[in-house]
Amino acid sequence: MSRPTQERAVRTRELILKAAAEEFDEKGYAGASITKIVDRAGVTAGALYFHFQSKQGLASAVMNAQSGAIEPLIGSEGLQRLVDITLVWARQLQVDPVLRAGVRLAVEQGSFGLQDASSYQGWRTIMGECLHEAARKGELRPEADPDRVAAFVVGACTGVQLYAQLLNGRKDLTERTVHMWELLLPGIAVPDVADRIELDGERGKRHDDGGVADGGTGG
Amino acid sequence: MSRPTQERAVRTRELILKAAAEEFDEKGYAGASITKIVDRAGVTAGALYFHFQSKQGLASAVMNAQSGAIEPLIGSEGLQRLVDITLVWARQLQVDPVLRAGVRLAVEQGSFGLQDASSYQGWRTIMGECLHEAARKGELRPEADPDRVAAFVVGACTGVQLYAQLLNGRKDLTERTVHMWELLLPGIAVPDVADRIELDGERGKRHDDGGVADGGTGG
Repeated sequence: MSRPTQERAVRTRELILKAAAEEFDEKGYAGASITKIVDRAGVTAGALYFHFQSKQGLASAVMNAQSGAIEPLIGSEGLQRLVDITLVWARQLQVDPVLRAGVRLAVEQGSFGLQDASSYQGWRTIMGECLHEAARKGELRPEADPDRVAAFVVGACTGVQLYAQLLNGRKDLTERTVHMWELLLPGIAVPDVADRIELDGERGKRHDDGGVADGGTGG
Repeated sequence: MSRPTQERAVRTRELILKAAAEEFDEKGYAGASITKIVDRAGVTAGALYFHFQSKQGLASAVMNAQSGAIEPLIGSEGLQRLVDITLVWARQLQVDPVLRAGVRLAVEQGSFGLQDASSYQGWRTIMGECLHEAARKGELRPEADPDRVAAFVVGACTGVQLYAQLLNGRKDLTERTVHMWELLLPGIAVPDVADRIELDGERGKRHDDGGVADGGTGG
């Protein structure tokens, strides 16, 4: 493909992915309509099937696009970085259709015949990197294994958001995420680091919603 | 109703609930067939609709029967009781169709148009009782609020089992549950209680699978 053609293909793929996310977020897998997705994206059905093959393939792509929706703008490292990622996630889950649909499809995937842990593994990798960095910086208690802690945080976040979704449409998810860290930090971090980590929900705000733009590792 | 009729009605309801759980566990909500459930239970369709009205009503009943499937046989109290309940849960989720189907339906309920937190609230009540008892016994750190901790543990367990289900059919769920408590106890319990709590996965065994029958609060 020539460069302009390739760029157009990438843009088309993104349009379809976003339209699919909106449709899946609103209606779930069974209720979502390929015709509606094509209309929302303003593309042809041919273009959709060129990029995604099937409705299930499209759902998988949305599931795996979740972590791309998270970019904490605060420059932080190690354990504070992990906390910041979860605070952005808690906030964006209220507004970002790609993240919302990805989480919904990953949780409900059994209902449409998928058993695919890859979106969870993607989160685990990102969180594991923060925790390995935290270990190198001496932030973790010696018994806290970065990969096992990452796996637990992925599971805990998944369930906490699901419960909050059922109770109140995730309105208090930031507060629940802060509380999770209050409970977890004493078991994960050495005491002076646990005391220094900043758990202000405002850290989850982004430029485009008028939030903080720069920070540091707290303390 | 006369007493024998009433007893028969209770037994019929239980037969249907168990048959429905097996069918939902294997096939999910959309795939489950009322005809198959009636066959499995050995009852008439009329009896099923007398007790449950609709497929969705049957699914709700299975969701809310979950916590009845858990009875730790070890006589423990407070925080150790809470830990023991989660260890029995982790083990029974591998074998008990009522628990398996209840958890599956509660997680996937969005796919069939339900938004019902009551099965999670049921767990929260049970866990909250253990934690209030723990607070009265002086087991909790002063900043650990029993109801908020219970809500977090319900969410965390939900997500940890979902992730384990996708990775390996929950084969290592007991190990993941023990690890959850290793991470959480320092943030919840006063130090000498955190050290005393027993986290042996064998505590989740029951009489009928050759497990321990009596214990104490450990340590």
